[in-house]
Amino acid sequence: MLIAHVLRDKGGVVYTVRADATLEEAARALNEKKVGALVVIAEDGGISGVFSERDIVREIAKNGVKCLNESVSAVMTRDVITAGPSETVDEGLGRMTDRRIRHLPVLDGGRLIGVISIGDLVKHRIAAVEAEAAAMQAYIATH
Amino acid sequence: MLIAHVLRDKGGVVYTVRADATLEEAARALNEKKVGALVVIAEDGGISGVFSERDIVREIAKNGVKCLNESVSAVMTRDVITAGPSETVDEGLGRMTDRRIRHLPVLDGGRLIGVISIGDLVKHRIAAVEAEAAAMQAYIATH
Repeated sequence: MLIAHVLRDKGGVVYTVRADATLEEAARALNEKKVGALVVIAEDGGISGVFSERDIVREIAKNGVKCLNESVSAVMTRDVITAGPSETVDEGLGRMTDRRIRHLPVLDGGRLIGVISIGDLVKHRIAAVEAEAAAMQAYIATH
Repeated sequence: MLIAHVLRDKGGVVYTVRADATLEEAARALNEKKVGALVVIAEDGGISGVFSERDIVREIAKNGVKCLNESVSAVMTRDVITAGPSETVDEGLGRMTDRRIRHLPVLDGGRLIGVISIGDLVKHRIAAVEAEAAAMQAYIATH
Protein backbone atom coordinates (compact mmCIF):
# COMPACT_ATOMS: atom_id res chain seq x y z
CA MET A 1 0.00 0.00 0.00
CA LEU A 2 1.49 3.28 -1.15
CA ILE A 3 1.05 6.80 0.19
CA ALA A 4 -0.36 7.71 -3.26
CA HIS A 5 -3.28 5.31 -2.53
CA VAL A 6 -3.98 6.95 0.83
CA LEU A 7 -4.04 10.38 -0.84
CA ARG A 8 -6.30 9.08 -3.63
CA ASP A 9 -8.89 8.02 -0.99
CA LYS A 10 -8.42 11.03 1.26
CA GLY A 11 -8.10 13.67 -1.44
CA GLY A 12 -5.24 16.08 -1.90
CA VAL A 13 -6.73 19.06 -0.09
CA VAL A 14 -3.99 20.89 1.84
CA TYR A 15 -4.97 23.30 4.59
CA THR A 16 -2.51 26.14 4.75
CA VAL A 17 -1.83 29.22 6.87
CA ARG A 18 0.04 32.42 6.05
CA ALA A 19 3.41 32.88 7.75
CA ASP A 20 2.27 36.28 9.08
CA ALA A 21 -0.99 34.99 10.62
CA THR A 22 -1.17 35.16 14.43
CA LEU A 23 -1.28 32.04 16.60
CA GLU A 24 -4.89 32.89 17.44
CA GLU A 25 -5.80 32.92 13.73
CA ALA A 26 -3.93 29.66 13.21
CA ALA A 27 -5.79 28.06 16.16
CA ARG A 28 -9.09 29.05 14.52
CA ALA A 29 -7.99 27.49 11.23
CA LEU A 30 -6.91 24.24 12.95
CA ASN A 31 -10.23 24.05 14.77
CA GLU A 32 -12.36 24.92 11.74
CA LYS A 33 -10.65 22.37 9.48
CA LYS A 34 -10.51 19.75 12.26
CA VAL A 35 -6.84 19.01 11.60
CA GLY A 36 -3.77 18.87 13.80
CA ALA A 37 -1.37 20.73 11.50
CA LEU A 38 -1.30 23.33 8.73
CA VAL A 39 1.29 23.84 6.00
CA VAL A 40 2.91 27.29 6.03
CA ILE A 41 3.34 28.53 2.47
CA ALA A 42 6.21 30.83 1.44
CA GLU A 43 5.72 33.77 -0.92
CA ASP A 44 7.19 31.76 -3.83
CA GLY A 45 4.57 29.05 -3.24
CA GLY A 46 7.02 26.60 -1.64
CA ILE A 47 6.68 25.17 1.87
CA SER A 48 8.26 27.34 4.53
CA GLY A 49 7.17 25.26 7.51
CA VAL A 50 4.53 23.22 9.33
CA PHE A 51 2.43 24.61 12.15
CA SER A 52 0.82 22.15 14.60
CA GLU A 53 -1.30 22.02 17.74
CA ARG A 54 1.87 21.18 19.64
CA ASP A 55 3.52 24.45 18.53
CA ILE A 56 0.66 26.41 20.14
CA VAL A 57 0.84 24.46 23.40
CA ARG A 58 4.62 24.93 23.59
CA GLU A 59 4.36 28.70 23.10
CA ILE A 60 1.60 29.04 25.71
CA ALA A 61 3.81 27.09 28.13
CA LYS A 62 6.81 29.33 27.40
CA ASN A 63 5.21 32.76 26.96
CA GLY A 64 1.66 32.59 28.29
CA VAL A 65 -1.29 34.54 26.94
CA LYS A 66 0.73 37.07 24.95
CA CYS A 67 1.99 34.37 22.56
CA LEU A 68 -1.38 34.36 20.80
CA ASN A 69 -0.36 37.58 19.01
CA GLU A 70 2.93 36.09 17.81
CA SER A 71 3.22 35.18 14.14
CA VAL A 72 3.14 31.65 12.81
CA SER A 73 6.57 32.19 11.21
CA ALA A 74 8.16 32.76 14.64
CA VAL A 75 6.84 29.48 16.01
CA MET A 76 6.43 27.00 13.15
CA THR A 77 8.64 23.97 12.55
CA ARG A 78 11.03 24.96 9.74
CA ASP A 79 12.75 21.60 9.36
CA VAL A 80 9.88 19.99 7.44
CA ILE A 81 9.92 16.18 7.16
CA THR A 82 8.07 15.05 4.01
CA ALA A 83 7.07 11.87 2.17
CA GLY A 84 6.78 10.88 -1.49
CA PRO A 85 3.70 9.32 -3.13
CA SER A 86 5.60 6.16 -4.11
CA GLU A 87 6.71 5.43 -0.56
CA THR A 88 4.81 2.77 1.38
CA VAL A 89 2.42 3.41 4.25
CA ASP A 90 4.88 1.54 6.52
CA GLU A 91 7.73 3.84 5.47
CA GLY A 92 5.56 6.86 6.31
CA LEU A 93 4.60 5.39 9.69
CA GLY A 94 8.25 4.58 10.45
CA ARG A 95 9.32 8.15 9.71
CA MET A 96 6.55 9.57 11.90
CA THR A 97 7.45 7.42 14.91
CA ASP A 98 11.22 7.99 14.46
CA ARG A 99 10.76 11.76 14.32
CA ARG A 100 7.85 11.86 16.76
CA ILE A 101 5.61 13.76 14.35
CA ARG A 102 2.04 13.11 13.28
CA HIS A 103 1.82 14.77 9.85
CA LEU A 104 3.81 14.51 6.62
CA PRO A 105 3.37 16.86 3.65
CA VAL A 106 3.55 14.75 0.47
CA LEU A 107 5.78 16.12 -2.30
CA ASP A 108 5.80 14.88 -5.88
CA GLY A 109 8.76 16.32 -7.79
CA GLY A 110 8.89 19.26 -5.41
CA ARG A 111 5.15 19.96 -5.74
CA LEU A 112 2.94 19.71 -2.62
CA ILE A 113 0.15 17.23 -3.45
CA GLY A 114 -1.32 16.52 -0.01
CA VAL A 115 -0.79 15.98 3.71
CA ILE A 116 -1.15 12.66 5.51
CA SER A 117 -1.62 12.15 9.24
CA ILE A 118 -0.63 9.19 11.41
CA GLY A 119 -4.38 8.47 11.75
CA ASP A 120 -4.81 8.32 7.94
CA LEU A 121 -1.97 5.80 7.62
CA VAL A 122 -3.13 3.63 10.52
CA LYS A 123 -6.66 3.52 9.07
CA HIS A 124 -5.31 2.26 5.74
CA ARG A 125 -2.98 -0.21 7.40
CA ILE A 126 -5.90 -1.72 9.36
CA ALA A 127 -8.10 -1.86 6.23
CA ALA A 128 -5.32 -3.71 4.36
CA VAL A 129 -4.90 -6.27 7.18
CA GLU A 130 -8.68 -6.84 7.32
CA ALA A 131 -8.93 -7.29 3.54
CA GLU A 132 -6.11 -9.85 3.66
CA ALA A 133 -7.81 -11.78 6.47
CA ALA A 134 -11.13 -11.78 4.58
CA ALA A 135 -9.42 -13.04 1.41
CA MET A 136 -7.74 -15.82 3.38
CA GLN A 137 -11.06 -16.88 4.95
CA ALA A 138 -12.73 -16.89 1.53
CA TYR A 139 -9.90 -19.04 0.20
CA ILE A 140 -10.17 -21.52 3.08
CA ALA A 141 -13.95 -21.71 2.69
CA THR A 142 -13.68 -22.70 -0.95
CA HIS A 143 -10.80 -25.23 -0.71
CA MET B 1 0.98 -8.22 20.60
CA LEU B 2 -1.04 -7.00 23.57
CA ILE B 3 -1.42 -3.54 25.06
CA ALA B 4 0.06 -4.98 28.27
CA HIS B 5 3.33 -5.56 26.36
CA VAL B 6 3.39 -1.96 25.11
CA LEU B 7 2.91 -0.71 28.66
CA ARG B 8 5.61 -3.04 29.98
CA ASP B 9 8.12 -1.47 27.55
CA LYS B 10 6.88 2.09 27.94
CA GLY B 11 6.26 2.01 31.67
CA GLY B 12 3.02 2.80 33.42
CA VAL B 13 3.72 6.43 34.29
CA VAL B 14 0.52 8.46 33.94
CA TYR B 15 0.76 12.23 33.68
CA THR B 16 -2.22 13.84 35.32
CA VAL B 17 -3.67 17.29 35.85
CA ARG B 18 -6.08 18.59 38.49
CA ALA B 19 -9.60 19.40 37.30
CA ASP B 20 -9.29 22.91 38.77
CA ALA B 21 -5.98 23.73 37.04
CA THR B 22 -6.14 26.50 34.42
CA LEU B 23 -5.57 25.83 30.72
CA GLU B 24 -2.31 27.73 30.98
CA GLU B 25 -1.12 25.40 33.77
CA ALA B 26 -2.25 22.38 31.75
CA ALA B 27 -0.35 23.66 28.67
CA ARG B 28 2.80 23.91 30.81
CA ALA B 29 2.31 20.33 32.02
CA LEU B 30 1.77 19.00 28.46
CA ASN B 31 4.90 20.80 27.28
CA GLU B 32 7.04 19.76 30.24
CA LYS B 33 6.08 16.08 29.98
CA LYS B 34 6.25 16.13 26.16
CA VAL B 35 2.87 14.41 25.83
CA GLY B 36 -0.27 15.21 23.90
CA ALA B 37 -2.80 14.45 26.65
CA LEU B 38 -3.17 14.36 30.43
CA VAL B 39 -5.58 12.31 32.53
CA VAL B 40 -7.84 14.40 34.76
CA ILE B 41 -8.21 12.77 38.16
CA ALA B 42 -11.40 13.07 40.25
CA GLU B 43 -11.31 13.60 44.01
CA ASP B 44 -12.10 9.91 44.61
CA GLY B 45 -9.04 8.96 42.53
CA GLY B 46 -11.07 7.86 39.48
CA ILE B 47 -10.76 9.32 36.01
CA SER B 48 -12.95 12.34 35.44
CA GLY B 49 -11.72 13.15 31.94
CA VAL B 50 -8.88 13.51 29.45
CA PHE B 51 -7.35 16.85 28.53
CA SER B 52 -5.48 17.12 25.22
CA GLU B 53 -3.64 19.61 23.02
CA ARG B 54 -6.72 19.70 20.81
CA ASP B 55 -8.89 20.88 23.73
CA ILE B 56 -6.64 23.94 24.14
CA VAL B 57 -6.68 24.76 20.42
CA ARG B 58 -10.49 24.46 20.30
CA GLU B 59 -10.95 26.82 23.27
CA ILE B 60 -8.54 29.40 21.84
CA ALA B 61 -10.49 29.24 18.57
CA LYS B 62 -13.81 29.72 20.39
CA ASN B 63 -12.91 32.14 23.19
CA GLY B 64 -9.50 33.63 22.40
CA VAL B 65 -6.92 34.67 24.96
CA LYS B 66 -9.24 34.66 27.96
CA CYS B 67 -9.74 30.89 27.73
CA LEU B 68 -6.30 30.36 29.29
CA ASN B 69 -7.79 31.16 32.69
CA GLU B 70 -10.61 28.63 32.29
CA SER B 71 -10.41 25.43 34.29
CA VAL B 72 -9.51 22.05 32.83
CA SER B 73 -12.83 20.64 34.08
CA ALA B 74 -14.78 23.07 31.87
CA VAL B 75 -12.95 22.00 28.75
CA MET B 76 -11.80 18.39 29.13
CA THR B 77 -13.31 15.42 27.30
CA ARG B 78 -15.60 13.69 29.82
CA ASP B 79 -16.57 10.73 27.64
CA VAL B 80 -13.29 8.88 28.16
CA ILE B 81 -12.55 6.01 25.75
CA THR B 82 -10.25 3.44 27.40
CA ALA B 83 -8.49 0.17 26.61
CA GLY B 84 -7.70 -2.98 28.61
CA PRO B 85 -4.25 -4.59 28.98
CA SER B 86 -5.38 -7.86 27.37
CA GLU B 87 -6.60 -6.15 24.20
CA THR B 88 -4.39 -6.30 21.12
CA VAL B 89 -2.43 -3.39 19.68
CA ASP B 90 -4.63 -3.63 16.56
CA GLU B 91 -7.79 -3.33 18.67
CA GLY B 92 -6.36 -0.20 20.29
CA LEU B 93 -5.39 1.29 16.93
CA GLY B 94 -8.85 0.51 15.53
CA ARG B 95 -10.56 2.27 18.42
CA MET B 96 -8.31 5.33 18.04
CA THR B 97 -9.01 5.70 14.33
CA ASP B 98 -12.77 5.03 14.74
CA ARG B 99 -13.08 7.65 17.46
CA ARG B 100 -10.46 10.00 15.99
CA ILE B 101 -8.46 10.11 19.23
CA ARG B 102 -4.75 9.66 19.85
CA HIS B 103 -4.59 8.51 23.48
CA LEU B 104 -6.20 5.72 25.47
CA PRO B 105 -6.01 5.40 29.26
CA VAL B 106 -5.50 1.71 30.10
CA LEU B 107 -7.71 0.32 32.87
CA ASP B 108 -7.17 -3.01 34.62
CA GLY B 109 -10.19 -3.91 36.75
CA GLY B 110 -11.11 -0.25 37.05
CA ARG B 111 -7.57 0.78 38.05
CA LEU B 112 -5.63 3.19 35.80
CA ILE B 113 -2.36 1.44 34.92
CA GLY B 114 -1.05 3.60 32.05
CA VAL B 115 -1.78 5.66 28.96
CA ILE B 116 -0.90 4.66 25.40
CA SER B 117 -0.65 6.97 22.40
CA ILE B 118 -1.20 6.18 18.72
CA GLY B 119 2.57 6.67 18.29
CA ASP B 120 3.34 4.03 20.97
CA LEU B 121 1.10 1.49 19.25
CA VAL B 122 2.43 2.19 15.75
CA LYS B 123 6.01 1.83 17.00
CA HIS B 124 5.23 -1.61 18.44
CA ARG B 125 3.31 -2.66 15.34
CA ILE B 126 6.30 -1.79 13.14
CA ALA B 127 8.73 -3.58 15.48
CA ALA B 128 6.54 -6.71 15.32
CA VAL B 129 6.40 -6.64 11.50
CA GLU B 130 10.19 -6.18 11.28
CA ALA B 131 10.83 -9.06 13.72
CA GLU B 132 8.57 -11.30 11.65
CA ALA B 133 10.38 -10.38 8.43
CA ALA B 134 13.78 -11.04 10.05
CA ALA B 135 12.61 -14.45 11.34
CA MET B 136 11.34 -15.35 7.87
CA GLN B 137 14.66 -14.37 6.26
CA ALA B 138 16.58 -16.42 8.84
CA TYR B 139 14.31 -19.40 8.10
CA ILE B 140 14.84 -19.08 4.34
CA ALA B 141 18.60 -18.72 4.77
CA THR B 142 18.86 -22.00 6.72
CA HIS B 143 16.49 -24.19 4.61
